[in-house]
Amino acid sequence: MANKITGVNGPITGWLDGHTYLIGLMAYPIRHSMSPTMHNNAFAKLGLNYTYLCFEIGNDKLKGAVDAIRTLDMRGSNVSMPNKKEVIQYLDKLSPASEMCDAVNTIVNDHGVLTGYTTDGIGFVQSLKDEGIDIKGKVMTLTGAGGAATPIAVQSALDGAKEIRIFNIKDDKWAQAEKNVKTIQEKTDCQVSLTELTDQEAFKQSIAESDIYCDATSVGMKPLEDKTLVSDPSWFHEDMVVFDTVYAPRTTKLMQVAQKAGVKHVFDGIGMMIDQGAASFKLWTGKEMPTDYIREIMFSDDNK
Amino acid sequence: MANKITGVNGPITGWLDGHTYLIGLMAYPIRHSMSPTMHNNAFAKLGLNYTYLCFEIGNDKLKGAVDAIRTLDMRGSNVSMPNKKEVIQYLDKLSPASEMCDAVNTIVNDHGVLTGYTTDGIGFVQSLKDEGIDIKGKVMTLTGAGGAATPIAVQSALDGAKEIRIFNIKDDKWAQAEKNVKTIQEKTDCQVSLTELTDQEAFKQSIAESDIYCDATSVGMKPLEDKTLVSDPSWFHEDMVVFDTVYAPRTTKLMQVAQKAGVKHVFDGIGMMIDQGAASFKLWTGKEMPTDYIREIMFSDDNK
Repeated sequence: MANKITGVNGPITGWLDGHTYLIGLMAYPIRHSMSPTMHNNAFAKLGLNYTYLCFEIGNDKLKGAVDAIRTLDMRGSNVSMPNKKEVIQYLDKLSPASEMCDAVNTIVNDHGVLTGYTTDGIGFVQSLKDEGIDIKGKVMTLTGAGGAATPIAVQSALDGAKEIRIFNIKDDKWAQAEKNVKTIQEKTDCQVSLTELTDQEAFKQSIAESDIYCDATSVGMKPLEDKTLVSDPSWFHEDMVVFDTVYAPRTTKLMQVAQKAGVKHVFDGIGMMIDQGAASFKLWTGKEMPTDYIREIMFSDDNK
Repeated sequence: MANKITGVNGPITGWLDGHTYLIGLMAYPIRHSMSPTMHNNAFAKLGLNYTYLCFEIGNDKLKGAVDAIRTLDMRGSNVSMPNKKEVIQYLDKLSPASEMCDAVNTIVNDHGVLTGYTTDGIGFVQSLKDEGIDIKGKVMTLTGAGGAATPIAVQSALDGAKEIRIFNIKDDKWAQAEKNVKTIQEKTDCQVSLTELTDQEAFKQSIAESDIYCDATSVGMKPLEDKTLVSDPSWFHEDMVVFDTVYAPRTTKLMQVAQKAGVKHVFDGIGMMIDQGAASFKLWTGKEMPTDYIREIMFSDDNK
């Protein structure tokens, strides 16, 4: 338990005192998470009297953990695997995006009333906006239908994407993919389609016609770090966006293929990760996270 | 919620990350407490990956709060008014001192097994020891029978005090005073007596025959800051100890009387407060709190 703490220089006052409110992250496994470093440094930078801690919580302890949010008057919590869907039954209200995703990654406690939000999709849309790209009116090809892909599809549709073409294999996420298509069609003006990823001609043609290709599967991430769903650079065109939600490794196989194709806008998942955190941060504190500072201290080459 | 945080100089790493364990203080009211400042600065100084926060918990929320210790796998908690006695029913084990005091101020969570301790009395005995005074074999006159006095009497008896003469008015604490006499007589070799404080002759004589006079009532503390149970310096003798458990104001009326009497060892309650914290700190972390550092940053004249 003994560490070298850096950044603390002398007595701490005005923080971590009797007025500090707790925010949690409830998931399992979770000790490796970078979220506490992100949020606690943002609180310290802005002088906000909150602190953010991880709690190892699986489905079995989830009800007790949500009770703890109320009992301890925590300001809220993040929620991650395996609790994103399970937690809904214990909350009082849901945001429209959470309802459409059937998932929650952020809980806000307003004097005992717990509202669930999903900020992953907001992080995706905002990270594009940070680079001057508006999702509105865009055609997007999206691979995946899991915990990353669903909020991306939902939030993009809510924010005015023209068309989303989902490709997935017929795995255990196929049913979710079908549900996503139905939900988005019912609730938004966005066109959505679902195609099997084995139809490589359709996949190739969809990418060619798209403004954005986003891979929200775990392909490219360990232990699949040598894999990519698109290996031929000729499938991409220069003016499009290629977005990989993976951020470790920093440059995935997919990103290498896109760079070889001369694609101008190649995104790793870091911006989305920070921007989803910033969206949660704003829900809890009402303040903008200093995202440039956070990116610098967490992802500058020295800290890799 | 926006404060000027001092002591944080650049990015914090190695603390407040995914591996940080939470320790609480459950009481009501509690936001004014100095305990988070004490413990968090000690954690930072020693590089221990814990943080300490206050939670507003009355008896009504106490069961849920103890459930939260287990569910969130907190390392433990302090407990203060109005929960010190009430909390016992929710714990698995009690230390001998807690059992004798029928009160708990510290909970340690060992993988789901919660043990209650009371460190207030340890703080009293240790703060004497810090100044070279051993409670062993001493005769003590003690006023009070409440949350401060009971653990002082119990721990002093456990640590070998020869005789404790308790004086109290016949208020709502009288029954507790009678219980303390019975418990200490049953469980230790210490001689204990209980006398009404209205018997001023007996009180005066007892002080004259004592090595230590300890006032563990709230007399001397706001709104009773102009009061003292002993106002005549001639009641004291130079070689004795006069100990006031109050630490605000820093110099109580009682201490002024003792100083006027030329008493060599006059104690305020700060040493006891820090040493009870250090005893809890050691139960949670296995480490010695850097008490000189903590005293300097919390109670140097600049920080008053």
